[in-house]
Formats: sequence, structure tokens, C-alpha cells
Amino acid sequence: MRDVAIIGIGNTKFGELWDVSFRDLVLEAGLSAVSDAGIDGKDIDALYGGNMSAGRFIDQEHIGAIIADYAGLSGMHIPAVRVEAACASGGLALRQGIMAVASGWHDIVMAAGVEKMTDVESGEQTDILIAAADREWEGMAGATFPSIYAMIARLHMDRYKTTREQMAMVSVKNHHNATMNSKAQYQMEVTVESVINSTPVSDPLTLFDCSPITDGAAAVVLAPAKIAKKYCDCPIYVKASTQASDTIALHNRRDITTLDATVFAAKKAYEISGLTPKDIDLAEVHDCFTIAEICAIEDLGFVPKGEGGPATESGMTALDGELPVNPSGGLKACGHPVGATGIKQAVEVVLHLRGEAGKRQVKDAEIGLTHNVGGSGATAIVHLLSR
Amino acid sequence: MRDVAIIGIGNTKFGELWDVSFRDLVLEAGLSAVSDAGIDGKDIDALYGGNMSAGRFIDQEHIGAIIADYAGLSGMHIPAVRVEAACASGGLALRQGIMAVASGWHDIVMAAGVEKMTDVESGEQTDILIAAADREWEGMAGATFPSIYAMIARLHMDRYKTTREQMAMVSVKNHHNATMNSKAQYQMEVTVESVINSTPVSDPLTLFDCSPITDGAAAVVLAPAKIAKKYCDCPIYVKASTQASDTIALHNRRDITTLDATVFAAKKAYEISGLTPKDIDLAEVHDCFTIAEICAIEDLGFVPKGEGGPATESGMTALDGELPVNPSGGLKACGHPVGATGIKQAVEVVLHLRGEAGKRQVKDAEIGLTHNVGGSGATAIVHLLSR
Repeated sequence: MRDVAIIGIGNTKFGELWDVSFRDLVLEAGLSAVSDAGIDGKDIDALYGGNMSAGRFIDQEHIGAIIADYAGLSGMHIPAVRVEAACASGGLALRQGIMAVASGWHDIVMAAGVEKMTDVESGEQTDILIAAADREWEGMAGATFPSIYAMIARLHMDRYKTTREQMAMVSVKNHHNATMNSKAQYQMEVTVESVINSTPVSDPLTLFDCSPITDGAAAVVLAPAKIAKKYCDCPIYVKASTQASDTIALHNRRDITTLDATVFAAKKAYEISGLTPKDIDLAEVHDCFTIAEICAIEDLGFVPKGEGGPATESGMTALDGELPVNPSGGLKACGHPVGATGIKQAVEVVLHLRGEAGKRQVKDAEIGLTHNVGGSGATAIVHLLSR
Repeated sequence: MRDVAIIGIGNTKFGELWDVSFRDLVLEAGLSAVSDAGIDGKDIDALYGGNMSAGRFIDQEHIGAIIADYAGLSGMHIPAVRVEAACASGGLALRQGIMAVASGWHDIVMAAGVEKMTDVESGEQTDILIAAADREWEGMAGATFPSIYAMIARLHMDRYKTTREQMAMVSVKNHHNATMNSKAQYQMEVTVESVINSTPVSDPLTLFDCSPITDGAAAVVLAPAKIAKKYCDCPIYVKASTQASDTIALHNRRDITTLDATVFAAKKAYEISGLTPKDIDLAEVHDCFTIAEICAIEDLGFVPKGEGGPATESGMTALDGELPVNPSGGLKACGHPVGATGIKQAVEVVLHLRGEAGKRQVKDAEIGLTHNVGGSGATAIVHLLSR
């Protein structure tokens, strides 16, 4: 098995991009990654594309082939693979791309993620997204993703005394970080008060607790670690790439305030890499809702269970805190094009490890973690990256 | 890189299975593969699920997690991955599963394919399926899959003098084979006359030239070749697993009568394995339409370009011919649950290589080929399997 490095990154602006199509998005992200890696499209041996639901968002399947074709790669007849794990589709594309290089089957691999979510009506978006949960036991009963995470939030508040304000602080922090990210969907500050007083979505969650509907794409170029320096001065090495699953429906879980898939994926990642949560300099975690970031920092081992709220309140996860979490602005403020998020997280971590993150640069970042969740935690994917 | 073997197989009956759900289907196929391999579910390290369009057929995404959960595997938190390449999704699941074992990342891997196609109205099925082609350039212009393959057929007839009767003979042969397959959707003979006189679909193709709408699932269990004999007396070894892509739309192709993706995938498979078309004892090829089988046997190198029609007419591809093609009945008569087909092809070849194919057994079969196509050839996946 070979070690793998990231040698190129790219991502589009995230937002409601009315004049940009699915194909334009993935092409733009892919081209910037290719250009960043200093390679030619012809050097790419295989392509992995993460996408949740183009079948419903744009009536298009066969996403691997569409990407390869519109990226101008079809003439090379390379393998083009679409992977899907709902909102973890991007992380899954990264993991399968890494596996393809690690296995020795392919050398230079592109892993991309893309979602074009704004070309349908908003009621339809909610219905499309609940397909990431259990349609028969959750969707058909009227559950939406905000309502599922609201249940998690309620129990977390009840059991661990997590406060409404602490959840709002996740949003405040991530919005603040996004003001320094020109690619973010919402480059504006919010306050605890404005979060709490925004439109109720599913009590206790309000609009500003929820990640938005976003168009966007991101891409990375992978290569065997041994030859990575041929392509770039600062390859970023993959120390671990792990994935775990859980029941798709919330009601079958051991405990809904812990995402066991996250716990398992993280444990395995630490085991493989020999690293511990203390070694991590920054983390991009799956804050699809503010409560999700609180659960994530607990489940990833950064703080003991139940202490995610107080940790957030203490400033530990702020950009100048002990462990900066979601410097990009996270899903909440950078935006959440579901299939692209897992790749964007890696792009963000690479920027920091290279020292190219501009105003939001985490100082002396050596090791970063990405955490991408599918649905309400039926899939979790963790990557550990290092300089 | 490790060699890989298939140690267990299973598949459901293919057909219009009104009383069986998506979850039931994949569970049944998976359980038979597990039982055939003589393993326990707990032995499975990772799961790859091929599915084209559950998002639209049953309003469900996150297919890897759904399969792992309903197969009772969620408690083990194994990685569960859905892959999609339209009608080649099954072959892609097989290829990614093989890669997962070859890489050393996982030991015992299940690769499954499933599609539940009958729970929507028939007009909708046609629309869902055209999402495998180029929605913007083909689907929106009114193209359907029969019309795309009808164009291929017309040009093949014009250029190579392929006759209407020769195309019908593909259907006659595959229906005949299916009479010996209790899992096939249509276990009935058809005649050249009945094919030609069946309902016109897209001239020159009639109803009996077209593969049907089918519910079904299939699964295989993969293991490192070195330890395969621990699990079964007759492991079937993977000699090559290749994939190639092409433009998604027909109008951008060099030549629409040749599927370049098939040519590239096959060439690579022969190169990797050191085998030639002459070494193949049987082939399961992607006969989504009768003309597709004719193109396939040419593009796979079994006959020179343009001679697929006469070869079919000569009986070369019959069960007792020089190279039996589609002993299962093929997509045409065994049925075509799009995400399951690529895995079912492997299940069929394994049966023959083990000598367990009953009345339709290909004598002394040592090496078999599977050929799975996505859309009109934007993806092709070839596997070479041997005793």
C-alpha cells in the first residue's frame, strides 16, 4: 500500500449561483486543482466524483462520465466513478480516490465533489435532502433534516445542559470565519441574539442554526507520496482516511446525541496514524446544524462528551483558540453544496497546512482533520492530513 | 497489490416483483452470497453497493448506508459505499470492491447491485433512465434510450449490412437461454418473426429487441486470493478489472457503431491478464438492446468490426457455439435491474466456472468475461474471471 499526497486543490465560490450550471461548477473546480498541481489534464489517470442527488436536482445521473466528459477527459477514456453517501459524498470521493492511488491501480487521481441545488423549488429541496435519511421511517413520517437535528439538540440540551446560546455561538464563530473567506456563501457577521431571533425552523433550531442550500464544487489532485514533490513544493500527506456507518434512522441508534459513526471513524483514524486529538491543529467538521458541530467536537475526541457547548463558549474552537474548528466558515457560513462539502473541507485544511489561508490562517498548522457526515450520521468520514 | 477472488454469490429472481421492496431485494441477494461463501455477516469488512437511481425510483439516496443497515451490518460500523455509473453501476461496485481488497484496505468485501424500478409509472421510468445519457443534449431533445440505440442500429445496418433478422436472433438466443434460468424475468422462447412483429419502439427496434424494466439484486463476496480456499472449494479469481469512459452524448463520438469505452476497457483487461479474446469460454455482455450485443462482441474483440450480425446468425454465440454469449438470458431475457446487472453478470460467470449452471452450463468453462455498459457507452467495465 502506498502513501498518498494532495498535490493540487481548487474550489468555486459557494452560493446561489444562478448563472452557473452543474457542469460549469465542476469544470471550474477541476481546472483550478489541475492548474494548482501544475499538471495537465492528460496526466489524470482516474476520476472520483462525489455527488448526492443530481438525479433529482438536475435530472442527471452517470455523474462520473458527465464530469470526465465536460472536463475534456473523455478522449483519454479514464475510469470515472461517482460515489454517493448523501452529504458525505465529497469525503467519500476523497477516500476512494486515495484508495485508488494507495492500491497502485492509478497514479494521478482527481477527487471532486459537486452539487447544484438551486435549480429546483425550495419545498422540493427539503424533500430531496430527506432522501439522505430513512425515507420509509423518517421522511414519510414528515421528518425533515432540521427536525431530526432538532431532536438531537433537545436531548443534548436536556442531558448535558447545553444552552441555546452555546449553539448560537457556533453560528457566530463560523460566520465570523467566513468573513475572511472570499469563497464563502455568507461573508457577514451574526450575533447570538440575531441567531436566536432568526426565523424558527424546527425548535430549538432557527434559520441561522442551519446550513444553507448552496451551489458549489471542489476538487483535489492526489498522487503517490513518493513522487508528490515532483509536482509541488508543499505536498500535503494523507495520514489516515477512514469511514464508518450506522443505522440510517435515528430511532435505531444506541444514543442520538453521539454519532457512533464519527466515533468509530475517528478512533480508526487516530489508530492508523498514531496521532491523537491533541495533535490536531485545526479541524473542518460537519456543522450542518450548530448542534452538529457541538456533537462533532465531542465525538472526534477533542472534548469529553457533553462539553461541546461549554468548549464553544470558552472560545476553544475560535480561530485564535486552542483548536480552531471550521476556519472556512463551515457548512453554516461557507455553504453546504452537499456533494462538494467533503472535498472543500480538505481544500481548506490544505490551504492552512501550506500557510496559504490568508487572513484566516491558523498559525503553525501542521496537522488538520476533516469530518464529513452523511445524513444524520449513517455515514461518517474522517481524514487526517499533515504537512 | 493483492490478487482477489470471488468466494460467494447470490441473486434474487429478476422480474416485476410487486411485493418485494428495494431493501428486501438487496437483503435477499446479500444473504445468499454470505451463505454461499460460508461466512458470517460479521466477517464483512466493507460494502460496495451499485445503484443507478434509487433517488428517483424510490426517493432514497444514501444507498450504501441503507444496504448496510438493512443487511444488519450497521452495528459493525463498516464502510458502506454507493457507486453509480448508470447501468454500469453493478460492474462499478464489483470493480471498487475488488480494488478495496487488492489495496489491502479491506479483506472480506461485499459488492452488491440493486434496482427497484417498478414502483413508478412507466413514462417516468423512461425519463429516469435517460438521465444515464446527456440530459441537456439528448434527454431534453426528446431522445430515449431505445431511440439512441435505434440510431446505432440504423448506422450499423447501413455500414455493415447487418440485417433486421440478425438483431432479432440475439433476442431469440437470449430468450432461449433464459428458459433454462429460473431466476430470469422471461423464461419463454421467442422467434425471429415474433421479435420483428412485436410492438415497434423506435424503428428498427421493436419491444422484443429491448431489455425490460426489472426489479432485482445480486451480490458477490470478495476475498484476497491467498486465503480464498479457506472459504470455498472453488474460488473464482479476478484476472482483470478495467473501466473506461467516453463522451456522454452520442453526437460527440468518433463513431457511434463502436463503443470506444468497451474497446479501451477490453484492451486493458487483455493486457493486464495476458489473455486474448480466444481464451474466453463464455461472456456475459451488455445487451440492453439487441444491437448492443452485436456491437459488444465486435468491440470486445471476439469478431472483427461489422461481423457481429453474421456471427450471431452462424450460431457462434449460442450456448453450444464457439463462444456462448449471455447464457443467463442477458439483459434482454434475464432482465435488467440497472444497478444489479453488472453483479448478476459476475454471478452467472461464476456459476459456469464452478460448473453449477445446470441445464445452461457452458462445458469446460475455465475463463469468463463480463461486460457492463453505462448509458450508451460513456462507461464500460470489463472483468475477466477464471477458475
